[in-house]
Amino acid sequence: MKPYALPLYSVAAFLLAACSAQPEPATRLTPVDFSKVRITDGFWSPRLEKHASATLPVCIDQIENQTGRMRNFENAANGQGVHSGIFFDDSDVYKALEGMAYSLINTPDAALEAKCDEWIAKIAAAQQPDGYINTYYTLTGLERWDDMDKHEMYCAGHLTEAAVAYYKATGKRTLLDAAIRMADYMMTLFGEGGRHWVPGHEEIELALVKLAAVTEDPKYLDFAEWLLDQRGHGHGTFGKLKEREWPAHYYQDAVPVGELSDISGHAVRSMYLYCGMADVAAAKGRTDYLDALHRLWDDVCLRNMYITGGIGQSASNEGFTTDYSLPNKTAYCETCASVGMVLWNSRMNALTGNGKYVDVLERSMYNGALAGVSLDGERFFYVNPLESDGDHHRKAWYGCACCPSQISRFLPSIGNYIYATSSDALWVNLFIGNEASFDFCGRQFGIKMTTGYPYGGDVTLTLGANLRKELRIRVPAWSPNNVFAINGREITPLMDKGYAVISRKLRKGDVVTVSMDISPTLVAADPRVREDEGMRALQCGPLVYCAERIDNETAYDTFALSDSTLLEASASDILGGVNIVTATNPDGSTLRYIPYYAWDNRTPTPMKVWVRYGTGIDIQ
Amino acid sequence: MKPYALPLYSVAAFLLAACSAQPEPATRLTPVDFSKVRITDGFWSPRLEKHASATLPVCIDQIENQTGRMRNFENAANGQGVHSGIFFDDSDVYKALEGMAYSLINTPDAALEAKCDEWIAKIAAAQQPDGYINTYYTLTGLERWDDMDKHEMYCAGHLTEAAVAYYKATGKRTLLDAAIRMADYMMTLFGEGGRHWVPGHEEIELALVKLAAVTEDPKYLDFAEWLLDQRGHGHGTFGKLKEREWPAHYYQDAVPVGELSDISGHAVRSMYLYCGMADVAAAKGRTDYLDALHRLWDDVCLRNMYITGGIGQSASNEGFTTDYSLPNKTAYCETCASVGMVLWNSRMNALTGNGKYVDVLERSMYNGALAGVSLDGERFFYVNPLESDGDHHRKAWYGCACCPSQISRFLPSIGNYIYATSSDALWVNLFIGNEASFDFCGRQFGIKMTTGYPYGGDVTLTLGANLRKELRIRVPAWSPNNVFAINGREITPLMDKGYAVISRKLRKGDVVTVSMDISPTLVAADPRVREDEGMRALQCGPLVYCAERIDNETAYDTFALSDSTLLEASASDILGGVNIVTATNPDGSTLRYIPYYAWDNRTPTPMKVWVRYGTGIDIQ
Repeated sequence: MKPYALPLYSVAAFLLAACSAQPEPATRLTPVDFSKVRITDGFWSPRLEKHASATLPVCIDQIENQTGRMRNFENAANGQGVHSGIFFDDSDVYKALEGMAYSLINTPDAALEAKCDEWIAKIAAAQQPDGYINTYYTLTGLERWDDMDKHEMYCAGHLTEAAVAYYKATGKRTLLDAAIRMADYMMTLFGEGGRHWVPGHEEIELALVKLAAVTEDPKYLDFAEWLLDQRGHGHGTFGKLKEREWPAHYYQDAVPVGELSDISGHAVRSMYLYCGMADVAAAKGRTDYLDALHRLWDDVCLRNMYITGGIGQSASNEGFTTDYSLPNKTAYCETCASVGMVLWNSRMNALTGNGKYVDVLERSMYNGALAGVSLDGERFFYVNPLESDGDHHRKAWYGCACCPSQISRFLPSIGNYIYATSSDALWVNLFIGNEASFDFCGRQFGIKMTTGYPYGGDVTLTLGANLRKELRIRVPAWSPNNVFAINGREITPLMDKGYAVISRKLRKGDVVTVSMDISPTLVAADPRVREDEGMRALQCGPLVYCAERIDNETAYDTFALSDSTLLEASASDILGGVNIVTATNPDGSTLRYIPYYAWDNRTPTPMKVWVRYGTGIDIQ
Repeated sequence: MKPYALPLYSVAAFLLAACSAQPEPATRLTPVDFSKVRITDGFWSPRLEKHASATLPVCIDQIENQTGRMRNFENAANGQGVHSGIFFDDSDVYKALEGMAYSLINTPDAALEAKCDEWIAKIAAAQQPDGYINTYYTLTGLERWDDMDKHEMYCAGHLTEAAVAYYKATGKRTLLDAAIRMADYMMTLFGEGGRHWVPGHEEIELALVKLAAVTEDPKYLDFAEWLLDQRGHGHGTFGKLKEREWPAHYYQDAVPVGELSDISGHAVRSMYLYCGMADVAAAKGRTDYLDALHRLWDDVCLRNMYITGGIGQSASNEGFTTDYSLPNKTAYCETCASVGMVLWNSRMNALTGNGKYVDVLERSMYNGALAGVSLDGERFFYVNPLESDGDHHRKAWYGCACCPSQISRFLPSIGNYIYATSSDALWVNLFIGNEASFDFCGRQFGIKMTTGYPYGGDVTLTLGANLRKELRIRVPAWSPNNVFAINGREITPLMDKGYAVISRKLRKGDVVTVSMDISPTLVAADPRVREDEGMRALQCGPLVYCAERIDNETAYDTFALSDSTLLEASASDILGGVNIVTATNPDGSTLRYIPYYAWDNRTPTPMKVWVRYGTGIDIQ
């Protein structure tokens, strides 16, 4: 193997290097919708197949049979019976429905579409005459809008996302009309001139932006902005929040959102807030939001992010604790939060055209998020620690089932993150084999990507049409050496904010290749992260690796990395054929690594991402 | 029960209140040696009996039979055979011997003394002609003084402490002479004009101060000061430290000790360093040391201490991470570090006459340290988390056995922390039933204390002689309401730095009583400790309480405290008769608490100190 460079550098330093001090002027990329991208990838296609054949059926069975989630809608429609489960369980139905809709876009399936229609009829029937829809409040008879942390708008947001997705997938309006009626009803109570409201769990804001786009009605965008601007003025103390011990910062309600500088409190709520802020900033030019998002991104990614792209250090608040405090065994890193990092960083990339956001998006996607579902697609992680005693194991479902339904709507939409367009360029952000055909500058454009990524660093782009604009190919910060060629002739493109810029006009049939360096590399944490002191993590390309005891019965506890350790990557037949990395010391002892996303797919045993480096004995 | 006050106050705020901004002028208390104090206490006497009847025999059996620790000395004496175990295992023998010596002081025991003499003969025989003694280096033939982190001086320090202890207990000099020869030998290599040396693990410094005192030879004190002043000048990079990834701050070697402001790195090493600095500051008036110790105490106790008085958040470095980062499940809180807190805070109290140091001493002693040994005295915790999934269980011994031997030398010497004297006063620091007789102001003085503490708040002091000086009784910061009386007549003493000052001359036979308030109280963490956000801990007097699932099969996961929760303390027949506290909510649900020190003395089940407060649901 090639000797890896090992200046003591850190993920944070990494990102910092790619991070310009001043916010960039908005470049306004438009991501190419995954409906225009057919994924034909050695790494992802099997996962998408499992999603359709295993994950969705699991979610449907849980929602219909193993839990009362669908029965809640039936009872609410009949106006009798009790509510079972948690007060926000409706959202799991909506999120699963959104995933089913995305699956239909990728792979039409009459039976699945019929199932969607069956669910949608029950959901629509549960909607109250005034447009309100929430089975928990309808069945318990509790007073609506009395507790800002009871997720009424959160559920409405997921209803809306599902409705927009299913409308795009099928053109059917039933669920979309239900979402519109709920939104219009909420706007009779809240908004300019209405009563104050601070949703305890954000989600409605980004959903309203989607609704504004599909209905082409800006009033929903205005309502989203109004909700964002409600925060940080003390209005959140209305309702029942005072009953709780959570401070305002837990709800992102301590200061106006345009003044935020530090992430705090609940991780997923924060991600959804930032997505909503980015959407409104893009649509309405709120530079105060954009400035805040730049400050927040630095705080999240340079001071509070795990190497897996996971965020939220503590289970106690499902969120953030202290800068540079990143304990591994108790890392919370909720799957939903890693998906949230993908959603937020995609928006930041679209706003700025800076590749650093895709570096983080990719880190969260291939590690923190992908670990959330088992290789067979049937079991899920809610919490994703970076170290385990062997007692952390995926489950078939959770009482709070946000993460399974989150994964079920995330996986089929990964095609969203591969390409983007702008007035002057086509942007290639992720390296996933696909064939895409989309409108670009008013004409149909086609492109094909083939790659062995992330286990291989070679990417081949074949143009299906003439390209009259720049081609901008993201160069991951972790790949120091990259070779570019056009039709086999090597070129040296200029670099701009993490992208190789190919300005020469390309013609239909031209082949652009890039070779990135994915050889195994040891990474040190920022030295301020004391929990990782004297340790190293292993990365190959975007994949963070880990060691499980099941592969290392003898050396697991004793093996220490050093600058004499040899790192060799090789194909394997375990875990469906992942690339493993073998670390070998001069004394012949070895430690076998597997990709982090693939851990706990066998008998659960201890696991660690950070491995002792050097000869230090950390006892006494 | 009395309704507990519940302004959101914190342990840190607590200490802060008692903490004067400027370092106090040195008051120079002299702790009354435990050899002058016979403990007759309902709480501690049974623990001391277990120490003598169970803990010491366990240590002796482990050292002689279950491990090769004593065989290492025999092999080194014979100049043949191999070394078994870890390179610093000699220190466990010395620490156990120190505990045996203290036990002899409390309770003469011919058989135990004979065992000590047998060990001492073997230790002395292992000493090399030049005075060097370390079985690891002698048996491996490795070059001496080649690696500053191989604990040669650490072991020499524990040899010295054991030697001083046994000399005081029996007047026998064999071990003391061995320690003197080792010290004199080291001083031929190191010290003024000698080569640089930075002990990787402090301990020798405080031991040399004890040696200087017992030999009345100041050269050992000078050597201790020289060693302290070696740190922070880059000398520590000599030897093999470079091989390791530990940064200088791990070894308390980043800056000169007089300039330290923040604790960092290994917790136990830090505690021993601070003890040595306090001793040298007291003996040689090093105000730079004293100023640093005040800064360090604030950093440790206001920003990095658990409510149990435990310190060291991370297993990775057995030490410190980030201010206000206090994860509970992975809290390291090594038993040795809690004992170190007692040793250091006793010295700070002697230097300043401020009761706040005894508040912390007591917190660490009754919680973090006492939890280190099982109620039967036979099993030990090395790590003391504040939350457990039920998989954390005391062991009979550890490969790295610092903690069992640490407890074995700590328990029999707790009498050291009850009384202190100064030129103008007798100081009462801890409330432990005892009869004491010691020289005070040149004449024999006697005093008797009876109390149900810590399960009762009443203390009775009966004077066995006239007291011509002030009587200063510590008033714990956690006790807001206290009633004092002399011979039954209530008095209102002045308060000074955490002490009630009784200036009136007291006569032989006078009875001074104090009643403190030990009713159950909920404590909130400093709001900057996000891991404890929305939770409360329960304290009664100095005892921190915890809930084990074994007592709470139904409510363990669901019970939430609130301002409507009733807290009632009551005697029980479990765990040898601890006081339990029952928390009862208006809905009738209850959570039963036991003292933290007594957890995991039954079938291991989940345990937590911090319990959800309020009605917040911390999911999604």
